[in-house]
Amino acid sequence: MTQQPPPYWLRDNCPCGECRDPRNGQKLFQISDLPPDLAIAASKELDGNLEVLWSDGHRSRYPLTWLHDTDEAGDGRTEQGKRLWTAADFARGIPGADWEAYLTDPAEQAAVLAAVRRSGFALLRGVPTVERQVLRVAESFGYVRVTNYGELFDVRIEPDPNNLAFTNRAITPHTDNPYRDPVPTLQLLHCLENSATGGDSGLVDGFKAAAALRDEAPEDFETLTRTPVPFVFRDRRTELRADRPLIDVDPLGRIREVRFNNRSLGTLRADDVEAFYAAYRRFAAITLRPELRLTFRLGPGDCLVFDNTRLLHARTAFQQDGRRHLQGCYADLDALHSTLAVLHRRTAALDELAELFTGEGAGEYLGEAVTMAEHMLQAAAAAEAAGAPDHLIAAALLHDVGHFQGAVRGRDLMQGQDNHHSDSGADWLARWFGPEVTEPVRLHVAAKRYLCAAEPGYRAELSAASKYTLTVQGGPMDDREAADFARLPGAVDAMAVRRWDEQAKTAGAKTPDFEHYRPLLAALMK
Amino acid sequence: MTQQPPPYWLRDNCPCGECRDPRNGQKLFQISDLPPDLAIAASKELDGNLEVLWSDGHRSRYPLTWLHDTDEAGDGRTEQGKRLWTAADFARGIPGADWEAYLTDPAEQAAVLAAVRRSGFALLRGVPTVERQVLRVAESFGYVRVTNYGELFDVRIEPDPNNLAFTNRAITPHTDNPYRDPVPTLQLLHCLENSATGGDSGLVDGFKAAAALRDEAPEDFETLTRTPVPFVFRDRRTELRADRPLIDVDPLGRIREVRFNNRSLGTLRADDVEAFYAAYRRFAAITLRPELRLTFRLGPGDCLVFDNTRLLHARTAFQQDGRRHLQGCYADLDALHSTLAVLHRRTAALDELAELFTGEGAGEYLGEAVTMAEHMLQAAAAAEAAGAPDHLIAAALLHDVGHFQGAVRGRDLMQGQDNHHSDSGADWLARWFGPEVTEPVRLHVAAKRYLCAAEPGYRAELSAASKYTLTVQGGPMDDREAADFARLPGAVDAMAVRRWDEQAKTAGAKTPDFEHYRPLLAALMK
Repeated sequence: MTQQPPPYWLRDNCPCGECRDPRNGQKLFQISDLPPDLAIAASKELDGNLEVLWSDGHRSRYPLTWLHDTDEAGDGRTEQGKRLWTAADFARGIPGADWEAYLTDPAEQAAVLAAVRRSGFALLRGVPTVERQVLRVAESFGYVRVTNYGELFDVRIEPDPNNLAFTNRAITPHTDNPYRDPVPTLQLLHCLENSATGGDSGLVDGFKAAAALRDEAPEDFETLTRTPVPFVFRDRRTELRADRPLIDVDPLGRIREVRFNNRSLGTLRADDVEAFYAAYRRFAAITLRPELRLTFRLGPGDCLVFDNTRLLHARTAFQQDGRRHLQGCYADLDALHSTLAVLHRRTAALDELAELFTGEGAGEYLGEAVTMAEHMLQAAAAAEAAGAPDHLIAAALLHDVGHFQGAVRGRDLMQGQDNHHSDSGADWLARWFGPEVTEPVRLHVAAKRYLCAAEPGYRAELSAASKYTLTVQGGPMDDREAADFARLPGAVDAMAVRRWDEQAKTAGAKTPDFEHYRPLLAALMK
Repeated sequence: MTQQPPPYWLRDNCPCGECRDPRNGQKLFQISDLPPDLAIAASKELDGNLEVLWSDGHRSRYPLTWLHDTDEAGDGRTEQGKRLWTAADFARGIPGADWEAYLTDPAEQAAVLAAVRRSGFALLRGVPTVERQVLRVAESFGYVRVTNYGELFDVRIEPDPNNLAFTNRAITPHTDNPYRDPVPTLQLLHCLENSATGGDSGLVDGFKAAAALRDEAPEDFETLTRTPVPFVFRDRRTELRADRPLIDVDPLGRIREVRFNNRSLGTLRADDVEAFYAAYRRFAAITLRPELRLTFRLGPGDCLVFDNTRLLHARTAFQQDGRRHLQGCYADLDALHSTLAVLHRRTAALDELAELFTGEGAGEYLGEAVTMAEHMLQAAAAAEAAGAPDHLIAAALLHDVGHFQGAVRGRDLMQGQDNHHSDSGADWLARWFGPEVTEPVRLHVAAKRYLCAAEPGYRAELSAASKYTLTVQGGPMDDREAADFARLPGAVDAMAVRRWDEQAKTAGAKTPDFEHYRPLLAALMK
């Protein structure tokens, strides 16, 4: 180390099992539990780690990669790492997916959610034109935020509207519910009918508009970030008020939230309202620039999901020559980002598995004529050829991951080391797969012991290596063990996997590679 | 006017029916709709208003009281106007109410919600110890915020907890869900059982602690407001991250949100982590000062409601010698503040009615020997003496409010002037009361015309003035009018009110005053 990291920072990040709950990474101590004058008593680099002995006797070990990590991602809520856009950026189409693909393909779902995070919106197509379906869309990645408008709201002409949305008039670009704090961070609009003339939708990137203001008139930008503005809404049953700036920046000055809605901008009482109004009018003019406005038409089954802290949405006027009916609801970005992160973890897990097959998997398989990877791919191919259901193809493909050091080492150290490769493999896979995959893996050694006992001639057909390991594993089951085994819920599946296991030891056999199975695995992952 | 207000500010606040929707005060124009170089062409003060002719021909009229108003209230989300407290401030008890009283008495409900707004918390007692009841408490003032913990969460010992809350360990003062953005701004904890030794609750005013830090170490306070800190939570199904400062201030520097939770404080990558940790440790030490910590014990039926952007909550360790079971949920402050504001409007409306009775009500009543107020109070007393239901006592009390200029003037001008006092009174009352009160008021003149036609001798008993107004009002009904009237849903109630009306013209009769009826009216208000 050229420079010692600050002691309290370093200690607060100690990754040991005493300092952190290994299940969720939550710290088990308070910052005030650390002794005053905490110091590093000794430290050394060893095996890619910084090992530290603390003045209070505690020991920590930090991977050097972690120590030198930087944090470019942020929390995804400021302009950092986002794509600020103009309408021309979507000349080739707007981000989105078909609803069925979104529901069934994790990669499609991740792409949609990533578009909301990065560009502020995405369009789902083919969402069933059924009332309340918009709630199902919100629940596919998060939680509905209930407001004074209810769990959901209908956007159509109402006889005595309490909001401009419920008329047929044009609506200029704005954000919703600025008078709420916390403001709903996401909005969904699901089109059930749109046969009226007009009523097209528009979106403007409020971060882009704010960034343009910062470029063109920095003092106006500063004024808008420095002036809390009262946004108000009042009807018979509701009286809301939030005092927030039109452009909110984080402590590092990065744009993180735009509120823009003149309808509910109340009476500002401030020292320099004149400067505020000059800046406000300049910002308003920017939001109306045609090049910033992306215009499209929602058709039945379209569901627009957009970031209400960033995008302004608009609507052209429409004639009452047809019906126009949208249903909307609010939700929050935090859950959307969480769902996206978990989907990315799934991708990362598949990448990790893929790497085991190409890396370690190339190693020798217990003296057989095939590598471990070849063996597992042959087992999967046999399952597939037999018309097995997806979860058994996956179990066949993954049945020996317990032999991989990378998998066993990756296991939670809190659970202790386990020498039984079927158990260790199943436990490791349980991070991602349900029992329909893990239990045949767990029982595939027991299935061999069972089949050797129950099926005449089975043992004789085993490979030489397998005959040897059988003795290590306890030999054929006795009658009582066999009866117990046969009653287990996964026994039949495990025997099926076992038979493909035995067939999967042919030197040079051609099989599909790991990537062939990726979609199948992704769909099975929790 | 000594000084002309800035034109765009003034015009943006034009209260006319063309500029604002009278139902909700929402503006009907965009800031960008205002012409460039907007100017005041002429202005004068008249009848307590500033009348303005604009350069584009528009005319506005602003009450001078509004013009000179200041805005002390704010949105109730910063330290402004709050009571920052230490434990000693609650030596005589903590704010709260009995659940039944809270549900039935709007003043009790307002007091509880005002305590949450001002002091950050309140305690409801006697909440039924039924599972999921905490959701009913949240719905009594707002909306439940669903999170990864579900719609509600159980706080009791769990076999494989993903959170320290679900163990029996002590928990030092902290805020919840700092890794969510938007963070849930309210938390509710409802005690179903608490027979274990220990497990007492603690609250610390985080705004008070932050203000102490600002006093004692301004540079540390500054550091904490200027440093976005990554808060993280990760389990199998969730991966949340929010980069927010420990102390968030609004653009005017007022404390508005505290996040404090070392368990989920992730790895800070910043230029000066050493300064951050020094400030963080100082702030942590302040939160642990005994004088800041209010300690109490939740018993079965207690439900604590507290501001999760301000208060830190804590729990002592408990033994497993008894059962401890709380249910909690999250909600948001904006809806709570809205409910409180609407309750205050109700109080204001009752104050307005009370003022009509003592002010204008002292005036002559159409040549009768009683004032208008005496007449209506006598009608109410007659209804009460007859054992009438509350809504008819209210209708009797209020049946002639249409005679009050204050009430008629107060009506929505968009609906046009109406010369029929029963209609105008009923319409005005409809802002607050349902048809069970307004319809007998609306029909009380028709009821006289009906009774004079249908009931022999009724007309002869009328007072001289009432005989005169009968002719103005159309005289006794003809057969067809009478048959139509008798079919109206409110006809029977209106006739009852009418009879009390006739009896209520006795000079000098003693009656209860308006305040006697206030609780009855409050309970009937929507």
